[in-house]
This record gives sequence, structure tokens and C-alpha cells, in this order.
Amino acid sequence: MSAMEKYDIVIIGAGPVGLTLSTCLARWGYRIKHIDNRPEPTPTGRADGIQPRSLDLLRNMGLKRKIMAHEPAKVYEVAFWDPNSKGIHRTGTWASCPKFIDARYPFTTLLHQGLIERVFIEDIEKHGVQIQRPWTITGFKNDGKDSNYPVEVSLAHVDGTLKETVRAKYLFSGEGARSFVRDQLGIKIHHKDPIAHVWGVMDGVVRTDFPDIKVRSIMVIPRENNMVRLYIQIASSTDPDWNPRKTATVEEVQSHAKQILKPYSISWDRVEWYSVYPIGQGIAERYTLDERIFMGGDVCHTHSPKAGQGMNTAFLDAVNLAWKIHHVERGFSPRTLLSSYESERKLIAENLLDFDAKYAKLFSARIPSAGEVAGAASNDPVENEFVKTFKASCEFTSGYGVAYNPNLINWSKEHPARHPLFVSYESGTKLRTGRILTPATVTRVVDANVVHLEQEIPLNGSYRLYIFAGQPSLTSTSLNDLASYMSNPTSFYSIFSHQDKTKDRYHERDNPHTDFLSLCTIFNAPRSQIYIQEMLPEVLARYRDHVYADDVWDQRVPDAKAAAHAKMGLDEERGGVVVVRPDGYVGCVVKLVEGNGTCEALDQYFSVVTGRKLGEERAAL
Amino acid sequence: MSAMEKYDIVIIGAGPVGLTLSTCLARWGYRIKHIDNRPEPTPTGRADGIQPRSLDLLRNMGLKRKIMAHEPAKVYEVAFWDPNSKGIHRTGTWASCPKFIDARYPFTTLLHQGLIERVFIEDIEKHGVQIQRPWTITGFKNDGKDSNYPVEVSLAHVDGTLKETVRAKYLFSGEGARSFVRDQLGIKIHHKDPIAHVWGVMDGVVRTDFPDIKVRSIMVIPRENNMVRLYIQIASSTDPDWNPRKTATVEEVQSHAKQILKPYSISWDRVEWYSVYPIGQGIAERYTLDERIFMGGDVCHTHSPKAGQGMNTAFLDAVNLAWKIHHVERGFSPRTLLSSYESERKLIAENLLDFDAKYAKLFSARIPSAGEVAGAASNDPVENEFVKTFKASCEFTSGYGVAYNPNLINWSKEHPARHPLFVSYESGTKLRTGRILTPATVTRVVDANVVHLEQEIPLNGSYRLYIFAGQPSLTSTSLNDLASYMSNPTSFYSIFSHQDKTKDRYHERDNPHTDFLSLCTIFNAPRSQIYIQEMLPEVLARYRDHVYADDVWDQRVPDAKAAAHAKMGLDEERGGVVVVRPDGYVGCVVKLVEGNGTCEALDQYFSVVTGRKLGEERAAL
Repeated sequence: MSAMEKYDIVIIGAGPVGLTLSTCLARWGYRIKHIDNRPEPTPTGRADGIQPRSLDLLRNMGLKRKIMAHEPAKVYEVAFWDPNSKGIHRTGTWASCPKFIDARYPFTTLLHQGLIERVFIEDIEKHGVQIQRPWTITGFKNDGKDSNYPVEVSLAHVDGTLKETVRAKYLFSGEGARSFVRDQLGIKIHHKDPIAHVWGVMDGVVRTDFPDIKVRSIMVIPRENNMVRLYIQIASSTDPDWNPRKTATVEEVQSHAKQILKPYSISWDRVEWYSVYPIGQGIAERYTLDERIFMGGDVCHTHSPKAGQGMNTAFLDAVNLAWKIHHVERGFSPRTLLSSYESERKLIAENLLDFDAKYAKLFSARIPSAGEVAGAASNDPVENEFVKTFKASCEFTSGYGVAYNPNLINWSKEHPARHPLFVSYESGTKLRTGRILTPATVTRVVDANVVHLEQEIPLNGSYRLYIFAGQPSLTSTSLNDLASYMSNPTSFYSIFSHQDKTKDRYHERDNPHTDFLSLCTIFNAPRSQIYIQEMLPEVLARYRDHVYADDVWDQRVPDAKAAAHAKMGLDEERGGVVVVRPDGYVGCVVKLVEGNGTCEALDQYFSVVTGRKLGEERAAL
Repeated sequence: MSAMEKYDIVIIGAGPVGLTLSTCLARWGYRIKHIDNRPEPTPTGRADGIQPRSLDLLRNMGLKRKIMAHEPAKVYEVAFWDPNSKGIHRTGTWASCPKFIDARYPFTTLLHQGLIERVFIEDIEKHGVQIQRPWTITGFKNDGKDSNYPVEVSLAHVDGTLKETVRAKYLFSGEGARSFVRDQLGIKIHHKDPIAHVWGVMDGVVRTDFPDIKVRSIMVIPRENNMVRLYIQIASSTDPDWNPRKTATVEEVQSHAKQILKPYSISWDRVEWYSVYPIGQGIAERYTLDERIFMGGDVCHTHSPKAGQGMNTAFLDAVNLAWKIHHVERGFSPRTLLSSYESERKLIAENLLDFDAKYAKLFSARIPSAGEVAGAASNDPVENEFVKTFKASCEFTSGYGVAYNPNLINWSKEHPARHPLFVSYESGTKLRTGRILTPATVTRVVDANVVHLEQEIPLNGSYRLYIFAGQPSLTSTSLNDLASYMSNPTSFYSIFSHQDKTKDRYHERDNPHTDFLSLCTIFNAPRSQIYIQEMLPEVLARYRDHVYADDVWDQRVPDAKAAAHAKMGLDEERGGVVVVRPDGYVGCVVKLVEGNGTCEALDQYFSVVTGRKLGEERAAL
């Protein structure tokens, strides 16, 4: 057995979920065996759009620019077309990500899945991992024979000529809807929506006088390279002659589309890709049984293509799991952290399907009036059920509807850390734990660059500590006190500090002191009045590339003097501290005060997160 | 002679000016011989920053994203540091492109010249042109022996082993400050500023506690990859022992820098590039003698590296010449258009040097107070000489100071076209002929994308006709009338229409009807209320990808209902027509009215531009 190759993780499947997981873990230094049973990446077609929230994530991974270099189509609006006696007519159109959502990129990005995959693959290869193709998984067991590498995985070339057995700390299945791993584990798919459909989907270049051919509707999705995707429902399990194996030719789908689009005409210059497939919306009962063998993406949940959720949910599954494996393996968290992967991600998938049903029901009755749409967009406090559902639908569609429940990493009043300095959404901050950090534009002090604060820490696997420092003249004691207590060797800041003190970290921007967290300080002051060496205690000044001036006006808080403070709902004079999880979701918010309180509250929170007793020696200071 | 290879143009030198010219002409289908005497592109160092205005241009050429992919440094602020008895201290800092300038990218972009060159070279090669290296020019004459290809050019490999003689319509020298072509033509350099300097320049990675190491100052320019460039003046012609050949070692320059930066410390991790060179600011007396052999870039004007103008002026020289050659060769303009290359570009170079002297004089006396800087930034109408000069300096530094004088393509009251519908800056529009089009954000109707109107027509060599169509209910007759007169076969719109009517142009966005111009229509209406087929005459509806809704709020005109109309100074209800030259500068502005007046005024303007009598048959309609 000692001859067997050992890996930190074996990843099966190189679709969006497997690639995202591999990208994160490869960057953070893990040894990965990654296989896929296809001889090459997706050559064409497949996949939904990239949601606004996913584009934030891709940017945070440094991959957005490479994706946008392919000139994808961008969808800003959704149009509704309904038939009447003369044919179809437009009954409404509105923003797919309206203004009430504070999104940097309020559009859906449409690009051929293979191009997206290749951007990830290039990055993975840069970090020394090659995807082994076409290989498949033939068996696995968590036999615990090697306590460090408890999982044995058997792999084979798809033609059966070559075989390999390896040991790993983790096995991950990103195999797609048909999963060997899930079947072997005997995990059932639970179908929330009893209705299944057969869909015909066709990418091509068309000629048409249909005016909304470049706007998203139920049937039309614009794509890159002047292409358009049409979705045509071929059959439904509500049909009397329902057959999930029903199929249709290219000509049949085109003829169906021509019929639907009347009185407009449509013809095809060329068809790039075409497929007919049955789909039912379902969720796996479990995402893991033993917290060693995990699943994600389509293995765990399948969505109607209409919802455009598949790839986006896969990205978030992967990132959620990646940082948790990282924190467990680095000793930053107890192994119990891994249980939150299923509890957090399964809930999201369930919410999506529940919502989809609710939305479909509401909208099948009627579509919203222009007034209701305007009301939803304008943050009108008076909301009927209809507008509420419409707004929620926009949040889901854009990806900002993801909200994790309170648990050990998402603080709430029920959290074991009960220091009085914690602030909740109910008691003042506009931030909600389990939701992403609100975007805010600030000026970086060292180079006066105007930057997106929420993007300043890359996806590096670290917690993000945002110290909103209010007005420098009022908070200098608070900052010095916080820094001084953070310097305590058993504080959350010091406990995981780099052991190798001889290594030169002068040019290290994000993790000069510890890989456990990165740190930003944001002052309510103009950039020209911020002197890093003079105004910041050394602990914070060391993060010199992460000191910011909150001096950029924001249309959403037009009267605020310090827009970033105001958008977070923090005191513009006194500031506050926000802890953000490595995947960008808010963990907790703490008041910034003089004395030991702020550090004490943070130590309490991180004591729970890390499973260690932090800050005990503080009294000795 | 018939055996001699023939080219549309021979371009000598593959620095910024030669590459930009080659890129444009290669895209527009010209046959190019392009040589450079270096064996490969600039390996490291050289060049100044890319100005905000140049970034607009690079984006318009579709090259910006590839340049930004190299993660260049961005400079948003300029700091002033002055010595006193204790060492240097900061005396001021302000935006390098303050808010009073309406810039999309209010920063300077710093990137190694070789990387910029490679972006151009890749594009040129995609269009079938290879740069021949290391080759040099050994002789040339405009002997007129072939009236189509009047220029004979002799070329040789730099090692002398290979020779070639070719004939061309044009010869362009982008050789840099030492130019064989300029010398052979006997054209003198005129030194405006009598003072010359020897500069030491050094790129490297440093360690320092100097707080503004990532902000631009007289001595410091941040660069990509955590590098910084330091400029150190080694000698000046005002020194008693002035020697333009004076040199200095790396250690001498570093020691000088250490001295200047006291009380701060600095040390080098590594030096990437280092050079010492003399420079005087000068302008060539002529840019061409015969309008067949042209020069541009450093051949014609050299600037102090402090001014950061060299590469940016080169870009604009090249684009200015490119479209004029294109229009003459396509028969869109008489050959006389070419004379405006020298008259326009030489004036800009002269203004730059004049201004540089004025600025240096004013700032050597004192630097502006915070109040003056704020005043300049806030568009305060009360301006002293100091603030005026400061604002002009920002305009020059950002590249928005370029203003071409009235001539046959830049309309003024002295222009031969004197139709009463022309509108001047004095009589109401905020646009100035000879200046770039004001940026404006609008919604594209076909796909609801929020776009930058000024970028919507790529640099395709065409005039750009922006029809601001006001409120649809008020202007439908004006639009129909304009379209109907434009359909006249001798109108500016029809005269150069595509001859090959059999070619399928269904998917042609920008030039479906003619290469002479591209056309945009902008309504003061929400996108959802614009129906292209129903509301636009066929002539305009054919440009379906260039119909826009002026429905995006703009902070600069917060009370406007139609921000783009308002920013141009056009009537929000009645609209107006703006003609923009192929290089992005405003040519003329005309009122949009019912009847034949608008088309008549445009025909008059284009009659002058094209040297043809346009619109004569209009009476026959």
C-alpha cells in the first residue's frame, strides 16, 4: 500500500463544479488528481449564463477578464411575450438585475461552456495540475486504512486499457446528473417539482424580424458571436402521451420555433449546436455521508434550463467546499466545519426549487404590471405579494438571493459568541450574516487608485477583516487598542501567524502575517490626509496596500460623507469591524471601541470558528 | 520596373507611431511593407504612460482589454515633494485627471513599451502583415515614374547581406528621434525650449518607506509588476560644465536618488532596465514635403520624459494620418485632405511645448494651494491665471487638450458651408469642432445593453453620424424627411454607397450601406418604448444595432431627462445631428428640423469634405 500514490483530493469531472474546486485547491497548494471521462473540454453548446454574482466571484478569482475577452453576450433585460389571436406580442420587459440590487455587473453573461472551462483549465495547469482524460472512476471506499489518506479510489481509462488505484484525503464527485459516486453511495434524488420536461435547445445564427432576439425571454437567450439559443419545450410529463425519451429533429424544433414566433419570421444561417434532453428538477438527499466523499453541482441538484442556475450554483458549491477543506487541512478549523457544506449548499438548492415553483405559479396567472415593476425597482416600501415575489425572483436570477442560515460561522443572536459588541441586522448594521459583503467604492491610499473594496482581497482562502476606522481623530485610541490586543500571542490574529520568520515577506500584500486572514483598514477621510505610517498602529500599517480612504461619492447614499461606512450601516465617525468569510459572505459585525472589547468579541467569534480558546492571556498585557 | 513589388505604403519603424498606422491600414485592407531595424520588439523599459484619452482610442481599436490584461499600474494622482532643511516633504497632491474632465478612465496606465508593441503586432499579423526585421531604409525618392506608385524605396537587412527596392503610394517614417528620412529630406528640428537635459531612468523593484512610491511625482512613476521607474536629472545645458554625452552608472543614479529622497530610505531588490540619455524638446519644421512621404512620432517632435507625451502623441499622429490616407485612396476625399495632417498635428506638438514652458515657469514660482486645486476641480467659474494654467495642464496631461483648429473638416463660421442650420459652440451646443465627442452612456435598444455611445462605432475609418432624435413623438417628421433626402442618390449618404448589391450584408453592423460613414440614432425615450421597425425610417432602421435610448442618468447633468442630449448641448425634445470624424473629433453639428434643411446642411459640409457637389438632384424628389 505504501507504493500507492497519495493525493489531497481526487476530483471526478471537469465541468464547472470540478474545475472551480480544482482551481481553488491548486492555488492553495494541494495535491490533486483530477479526471474527466470526456476526451476534451466541452466543444460547443451547454451551460447557462453567468449570473452577476458569479461574475463577482470570477473577478475575485482573477478569471473575469479572460472570460470577457471572448466577447460574450450580455443580457440586461428580460422580455415577456404572450400569444394572442394574431400571434405573439410583447407584454412586458424589465431589467434582469434591477437597480434595487446593488450589483457591479447588472447583467447575465452568455458564453459557450467550453470557453469558460478552458479559462479554468489554463489556470489549473499553471498551478501544476493536469486533467487526466478520458478517465473514469471505477470504485472507491473510505476504508480508513491510512488515517491520513482514508479514501481509496480506483480509476481507469475509458477504453479499459489502463488502471490506477490511489489514496486520498478527499474524493469529490462533479460528474454531472448521472453520477457513479452518488449511485454507489445509494443517495436518492428527491424531485421537488413533479413535472419533468423534454427540452430542445439550439444554438445558431439566425435572421429574424423578431425585435427581442438579443434580449432574454423564456425562449430566447442571446449568445456570443452573434448567435442565439432557442429553448423549445418538446414534451411535458403532464402530456397524455408523456415519454421522457421523446426526441425531435433539428427541422422539427425549427418548425416549432417558427410557429411560436408568428407573426415574426425566423430562419437559420447555421446551427452550431443542438440537443434534446429530458430534465426534472431534483435534489440529492445528501451531499456527503462521511465528510470525506463529497458531491456537488449537477450530481446534487438539477434545474430547469429556464432558471439558468446550473453552472452558477456549481461555482458556489465548489468555493464553499474548497475553503472549508483548506481550513480543516491547515488546522484553522475543526473537522466539524465540513458539515456546513451540505447544510449551507443544500438549503440554497432547495430554496431555488421552492422558489421556482412559487414563481411559475404566480406568473402563470398574470405578469406584473409596469407599475409593479417600477415599484419593485424603486425600493417602494409598500409591497404586495406579487412585487415581493418579483423582487425575490430578481435576486435569485442574479445570484444575490443566496443567504446562508445562522450557524457557527454565520453569527446570530443564537451564536455561542455572545459578546455585547456584536451588531446584528436588527440592531443597526445593513449587513446580514450569511450574505455577501455590500459592494463599496473607495480610494486605495498607497496609489490613489479608485477600487472596489469587496474585490481587494483575492479569493485566497483567508478570512477578511475589514476595519472601518471612522474618523481618524476619533478612533486612534480604538485602533491602537485593537492592534495591541491583536498582538497578544493567543489572539485570533496571532494564533496562526507564519512560523517561518526568516522568509522575506516584504512584497506580500495580502498575507504578510498569517494565511488565516487578510486585513483592510478604511478611514472616513480624504486620501491626501491619510498617512499610513503616522496614523496606523504597526500591525495594521503592515497591510499598507490595504488601507483605503472612504472618500468616493455613491449614488445609493448620496448624503453620506463616507459612503462605504454608510452602505454597511456602520457609524461614519466611529466605524466598526466586519468579518467576511473566505468565500465573501459576512461572518459577523463588531463595534469598534476603545479598550479590549472589540478584540475580545472577535476572539470569541474566532474561538467558535477555530475550535480553540483564543485571547486567554490577554489579562497579562 | 514592372518586376518591382508594389505596396500602398512602406512604413519604417515599429514603435508606437508606425505600429498604430500599420494596425489601422492593415485592417482597412491596404498592402503594407513594414520594417524595423531592431531584431525584436522593445525587450524592456522605454515609453511613457498611456493617457486617459489614449486609452479611449485603444478601446476604440479593440486593443484596450489586451493591454489591461498585463495588469499595468494605474496613476490617479500626482504628488509634489519639495526639499527643506530636514529633507523632502509633500507639499501637495491632486488628481492627474480631475473631475472637471469628463474622462471614462481618469488615470494614466503604465506598462512596458514592449508589451504594448506586442499587442499591436499581434493585431497587425492577424491582418496579414509581417514586420520585417532587422531591416533598414537606405534610400528613397518620389520620382513619379509610376503615377500610381510614385515613391521608390530601397531597403536593406542591417547586416547588409540582403537588399530590396519597392514602389509605394506612400512612405512613412516612424524611425524615432534619429531619422534617416528626415535627414535626407533636409528637414530641421526647431528647439522651442533652449534647455536640454541628460536624464537617467531606472525601472526596478524597490524597498522604501517613501509613502508616495506608488503615486506619480516628478521623479517617481509606478509601473506594472510592482516596479517603479525613477527619473533622475543627470545634467542640464544650464550647468557650467554641460556635456550632452555625460553619463552615470547604475550606482551613481541610485546614490543620487537616495540623496534626493532623504529622510526616506530606498534600496533596490533588482534593476530591470536602466538608461542615460540626452533630450531636448524640439519639433520638425515640416511633417511632409510632398504629401507622399510623411513622418510622425519622435521623428517630428521630442518631449521631455517628464511630460509623458511621446507615445500618446505618436498614437494620435498615426490615427490622424491613417484615415486621411484611407479617404484619399478610397476616393472619399480629394488629395488636398492630406495637407491637414501636418497642419493639425504640428500645431498640437507646438501647443504642447509652448504649454510645457509656461507651466514649468508658473510652477517653479509656487505650487497651487489646496483651494486653487479644489476650485479647478469644481468647475468654479472664477478662475485666476494660476487655476487656468493648472486646468490646462490637466487637459494636456490627460490627452484631452487636443483641439484642432477650424479647417475644411472642422466646421466654423468661416467654413465654406454656411447653411443656417449649423450650430456652433457659441450658439448653443456644448460640443466644439476639432475636439473629441463628449462621452455619454446610453442603452442599446436591440439588447438593452448599457453602453458608451462614443465607443459604439469602432475605429473603422468611417465618419460617424449621430442622429440625436429627441422625443419620438415630436421628431418623426424630421426623421422621415432626413431619411428621405438622404436616400437621394447624390446625398452624402448615397454617393459612396456599396456598389456590390449582391453581397449579403445582413450581419454587417456598422457599414451596411457605405464605408464612408456609420450611423447611430439616439432617442430621448425609455428603451422599452422604442420599436425600431415602427419608429424609424428604413434608412435608419437598417442600422438596428445602432439605435439607442437616452435613458441613463448622468451625475454631470443630474436634472436632465435625456443625459446624452444634454451633455452635447442639444435640445432634449428636438434633438440634433452630430458629425464626428473617423478619428473621433467633432466635425460639425446641425439642427434636426422638418423638411430638407438638415440634409442640405450635411450635404454642404460633406461637399466641402469630399470635394464633390452633393445633393444637387434633391429638387427632383
